[in-house]
Amino acid sequence: MQMDVLTLFPEMFHGVIGSSILKKVQEKQLVSYRIEDFRQFADNKHQRVDDYPYGGGAGMVLMPQPLFDAVDYLKKEQPTSKPRVILLCPQGERFTQAKAEELAQEEHLIFVCGHYEGYDERIREHLVTDEISIGDFILTGGELGAMVVMDSVTRLLKGSLGNEESSVHDSFSTGLLEHPQYTRPRDFRGLKVPDVLLSGHHQDIEEWRRKESLKRTLTRRPDLLEGKELSEREQQWLDDMKKDS
Amino acid sequence: MQMDVLTLFPEMFHGVIGSSILKKVQEKQLVSYRIEDFRQFADNKHQRVDDYPYGGGAGMVLMPQPLFDAVDYLKKEQPTSKPRVILLCPQGERFTQAKAEELAQEEHLIFVCGHYEGYDERIREHLVTDEISIGDFILTGGELGAMVVMDSVTRLLKGSLGNEESSVHDSFSTGLLEHPQYTRPRDFRGLKVPDVLLSGHHQDIEEWRRKESLKRTLTRRPDLLEGKELSEREQQWLDDMKKDS
Repeated sequence: MQMDVLTLFPEMFHGVIGSSILKKVQEKQLVSYRIEDFRQFADNKHQRVDDYPYGGGAGMVLMPQPLFDAVDYLKKEQPTSKPRVILLCPQGERFTQAKAEELAQEEHLIFVCGHYEGYDERIREHLVTDEISIGDFILTGGELGAMVVMDSVTRLLKGSLGNEESSVHDSFSTGLLEHPQYTRPRDFRGLKVPDVLLSGHHQDIEEWRRKESLKRTLTRRPDLLEGKELSEREQQWLDDMKKDS
Repeated sequence: MQMDVLTLFPEMFHGVIGSSILKKVQEKQLVSYRIEDFRQFADNKHQRVDDYPYGGGAGMVLMPQPLFDAVDYLKKEQPTSKPRVILLCPQGERFTQAKAEELAQEEHLIFVCGHYEGYDERIREHLVTDEISIGDFILTGGELGAMVVMDSVTRLLKGSLGNEESSVHDSFSTGLLEHPQYTRPRDFRGLKVPDVLLSGHHQDIEEWRRKESLKRTLTRRPDLLEGKELSEREQQWLDDMKKDS
């Protein structure tokens, strides 16, 4: 997969793509990155990328020309690809795991990251294929959002994760929050591991874990339980928990 | 404000804290960062930080000792502070702008970032004050989540933002999504700026912007309109838009 980023702060990406999974997938040649400063595509004398908004108002707006030309350039290098051009912005579609899975099927992703400024509407309407927001909070730019999407997509690519890494996340596939985990020592500063986990009774351990998983989901994310299929026994546990709370 | 990070991948942070707003606030001495590899606090011979889970199962679990000792060390350097100890994890409370505003009042934040592994439950129960998730998607570690929280908190600190940066985001304070913005040129590859924005009639421009803002919010984030106070005129526009759609 080709992952390209257009940003005015390319150095923000160096730490993240130079370590951890984003580095590993490069070494395995699963992903190739290009991090480009789109200021270099500005065709005006002072390499301006933004200007005042038509109709007045505070703030600057990113001009269409540098970004259109930058995307043209990235496409020309890969003439057969039909890239998804992704704008990170607060008005975008909320990013989810389903969106990550969808993007992981693509061959070429281009991330467009603004910083402080607004975007000329023609960028949204005629250049970009997806507008994504990672959440209802305000960041200084789109760069961290792009890194979040890149990381979550990358770990879905075949061959990107070792076994030890993927297995932990399998717990998500149950649709419930993960049960508590404990490791050594048995007693740390007087805080002890629950006896059941040291008992060696696999059935008891499984039952305890399933109950704790249900309890944590009920407390923290009851929305995940809506429409969830539970066994008769699990439903009984859940009803008892609700009574106790 | 003191912001500390405990991670096994400190190099991931270098690009982000070395540029943009996180760099500026350091230079202005508004924030001081310490990015520490918590492996150095492991008191065992091979500097292990994780071990197998009690009760069996796949995946590794971060041991309590290295993280408890690392937090003790960070606290000792600032004996008067009562740090918030923030764990980034999928089971955490969903991060919002309100949470960013809450954290921006603190003097000392410590971010705990795991990578692949689970956490021993004693870390959650007895070390950490806040568990935060930035969204319903899976990342390879807590580092990007920590950077997201750090960025959003930092830009709320008094003196951190220049005027040009803060003004754009003021549009959020209306509780609606921002209206479309346009800048030069008037005609770009045949794509034109709407006439009203070039008209010079301020009242028409304001009305167009307010309508477009309502329209975009209705299309993309109708949840933001629930319970929203609108003028009689705006309500009429909104009813017409619903009929047309």
